[in-house]
Amino acid sequence: MTLQLNETHDVLLRSWVPSANQPESDFPIQNLPFAVFRRAGSNQAFRIGVAIGDQILDLAAAHAVHALAGYTELQGGHFTAAVNAPNLNGLMNLGAPVWSALRLALSRVLREGAAQQGTLQACLLAQSAAEFALPAQIGDYTDFYTSIHHATAVGKLFRPDNPLLPNYKWVPIGYHGRASSIGVSGQQFRRPLGQTKPPASDDPVFGPAKRMDYELEIGIFIGSGNALGDHIGIEKAESHVFGLCLLNDWSARDVQAWEYQPLGPFLAKNFASTISPWVVTLEALAPYRRAWTRDAADPQPMAYLESAALRDGGAFDIELEVLLQTEKMRHDGVAPERLSLSNFRHSYWTVSQLVTHHTVNGCNLNPGDLLGSGTQSGPAPEEAGSLLELTEGGKKPLTLSNGEQRIFMEDGDTVIMRGWAQKDGVARVGFGEVAGTLLPART
Amino acid sequence: MTLQLNETHDVLLRSWVPSANQPESDFPIQNLPFAVFRRAGSNQAFRIGVAIGDQILDLAAAHAVHALAGYTELQGGHFTAAVNAPNLNGLMNLGAPVWSALRLALSRVLREGAAQQGTLQACLLAQSAAEFALPAQIGDYTDFYTSIHHATAVGKLFRPDNPLLPNYKWVPIGYHGRASSIGVSGQQFRRPLGQTKPPASDDPVFGPAKRMDYELEIGIFIGSGNALGDHIGIEKAESHVFGLCLLNDWSARDVQAWEYQPLGPFLAKNFASTISPWVVTLEALAPYRRAWTRDAADPQPMAYLESAALRDGGAFDIELEVLLQTEKMRHDGVAPERLSLSNFRHSYWTVSQLVTHHTVNGCNLNPGDLLGSGTQSGPAPEEAGSLLELTEGGKKPLTLSNGEQRIFMEDGDTVIMRGWAQKDGVARVGFGEVAGTLLPART
Repeated sequence: MTLQLNETHDVLLRSWVPSANQPESDFPIQNLPFAVFRRAGSNQAFRIGVAIGDQILDLAAAHAVHALAGYTELQGGHFTAAVNAPNLNGLMNLGAPVWSALRLALSRVLREGAAQQGTLQACLLAQSAAEFALPAQIGDYTDFYTSIHHATAVGKLFRPDNPLLPNYKWVPIGYHGRASSIGVSGQQFRRPLGQTKPPASDDPVFGPAKRMDYELEIGIFIGSGNALGDHIGIEKAESHVFGLCLLNDWSARDVQAWEYQPLGPFLAKNFASTISPWVVTLEALAPYRRAWTRDAADPQPMAYLESAALRDGGAFDIELEVLLQTEKMRHDGVAPERLSLSNFRHSYWTVSQLVTHHTVNGCNLNPGDLLGSGTQSGPAPEEAGSLLELTEGGKKPLTLSNGEQRIFMEDGDTVIMRGWAQKDGVARVGFGEVAGTLLPART
Repeated sequence: MTLQLNETHDVLLRSWVPSANQPESDFPIQNLPFAVFRRAGSNQAFRIGVAIGDQILDLAAAHAVHALAGYTELQGGHFTAAVNAPNLNGLMNLGAPVWSALRLALSRVLREGAAQQGTLQACLLAQSAAEFALPAQIGDYTDFYTSIHHATAVGKLFRPDNPLLPNYKWVPIGYHGRASSIGVSGQQFRRPLGQTKPPASDDPVFGPAKRMDYELEIGIFIGSGNALGDHIGIEKAESHVFGLCLLNDWSARDVQAWEYQPLGPFLAKNFASTISPWVVTLEALAPYRRAWTRDAADPQPMAYLESAALRDGGAFDIELEVLLQTEKMRHDGVAPERLSLSNFRHSYWTVSQLVTHHTVNGCNLNPGDLLGSGTQSGPAPEEAGSLLELTEGGKKPLTLSNGEQRIFMEDGDTVIMRGWAQKDGVARVGFGEVAGTLLPART
């Protein structure tokens, strides 16, 4: 769309932070994602940080030693207040030109040979010594449903006679989710209690949910918002997006099946959702844009969702991996095992289309609002982004390498999601990971 | 439930604010609802106020002149910070014993003969000279669906073969709504644009919504919340509720019909929702509790939603009125005309049940969160809380006294909702009103 490649994307750039130059690093100098952190175990206020290799650059500290001087966009009280905040909301609100200037400044001061190396060395903390908070105060959370493969597979299970509803190819289907229960990677949450209806019974029963699942999603953080009654047109939509993260939209399938009609999922989802600490900017992802395609036989997007630039490069080629580590695996020192690998490029709707659709009716978005992409299942069955799909609705157990089996999640299971973009001739851009663990139900 | 009648409910109490003693006043000394206000047209910070007759008592000012001294619950830095805030969240967070002590203190200092009359006189502002803000910063907004009459009537229109789904009498159906677009009475909002599908066409069209509607609801403000993973049991649920307000959940029915499956309403609702400025406490409503009844043939509530106290007095007898003033009526100086009168006592689920159900899975509620009751339609057709029901899905136009007709809302229409509780031998407890006006669509 509007973002072009520039010097910050140069694959030959190297950082004076050595770990950033390892080819497998998620956080080379071409990435520069943002998070909110503090020294683990301390009671310091949380601070904004930028990932570089295995280190975190403390942004307020870097600003305080004038390492970001010389950029008109990075001056003044608003910028100083924004970088000294305990969340990214202020920086998000400053808008795309500021984000872009900040990226350029960070790229230059973290490069090999930068004069600021001496002063910035003291502004680093090892990621292994940090703990993270939510990147932003999330005012509203909206979850979309952009994978047609997921929608079709799940639709088959919930509505065998009518899997993909007639609106799917016209409307970027979305619904409001719960903001208060969103946590950052490492979140542990109890198996929810709730009503479910056994197939053989007319009446529901109450107890711990039995069909616990994850959903592999991309999270989209809104940067600058829009006033109530205004909208964000398709060509400007991406300039309102601060960046992307990983999102696990935990789901209790048995609760969902019983409660979701006619107003949608509620208690099946709002007990917890977990996101990665790192927010990767769209500018960092510019080399991984892809043409957006859909079947010629499908309806083409309505005018308000249509853009030539979007067709050329509105999709993002981001690999998305799900791994499971059971309690037994953890106890035995066995590494997490991959359950599936998918890619964000399969999304039927683009990031821009979600933002534009969300605001076309005048709904106001605010800095720090989070949009979920919906489960990103690819076209092949093994690319499914949920257990519901991988086990065909619980009918086909997965057998893990250590012989354990899973239909749905068991207590003590940790689900880890990773994301990265990588191709020849371009620096790798990684998302790190989002991990979450299911605890036993409340007694 | 836990709240008993006490001296603050005494019908013989009179205030030294004369307008509070008028029998038709919504705000006698037995009510004492809270709002957030400032002098109209000023750029002062918003402040917390308490309604007394046609006046507002400035709570921070009253605290500053020590009018609330002598109550241990109303001392200390937390209380001082809470009453000096620009919203009610801090006071909500302090919990039911503080709200109750504050009500008692206010009742005593506003009574005829109170020694504080002299000092408090200077802490009053006429409501007619004030403007209001949202009472609280609303973190999350959840809308329920508690009127079985509404659910059945709307179900008939959306799903003629299957009006009331099998889960309705078991699950207090709810879904997440949009917090950012909630405004206070007086809100004006544009007719939303969106996708709709004409009945005669297979493909949707884009344009201004044509079937604009209101929904008559009670809003429920959460006071103290619960930690993620904990729940709020049915017997304690009301002690987490700060109070009730009026809520108009504006709806674009044609957008809703096309978008709502399978994940629920989204753009059909999130362009605007409007609430009354005044929040009436449950303690003020204690004289208007009613036994909660349901058909013996209906399923009885599951154990987690069951309580003997709730059967005895879990419902509230609150009259709810909808009025319309068209642009022509306003121009001609014609008063708003009543469209319907309903009552909150018809709700199939109680306030406590909504709170308990919402948290049974461990979902965390926070001070200032808003729950909507869902449209409160009574059993008779003329008690319907939406135009969709009153016009039988747009088939039967309403004719107003001035000859104008309405199927759905037209640009310039103002919808006003009022609520009050009243019976012999008890002081009237009113909600004031919530008004909102539909503006033409964005061009």
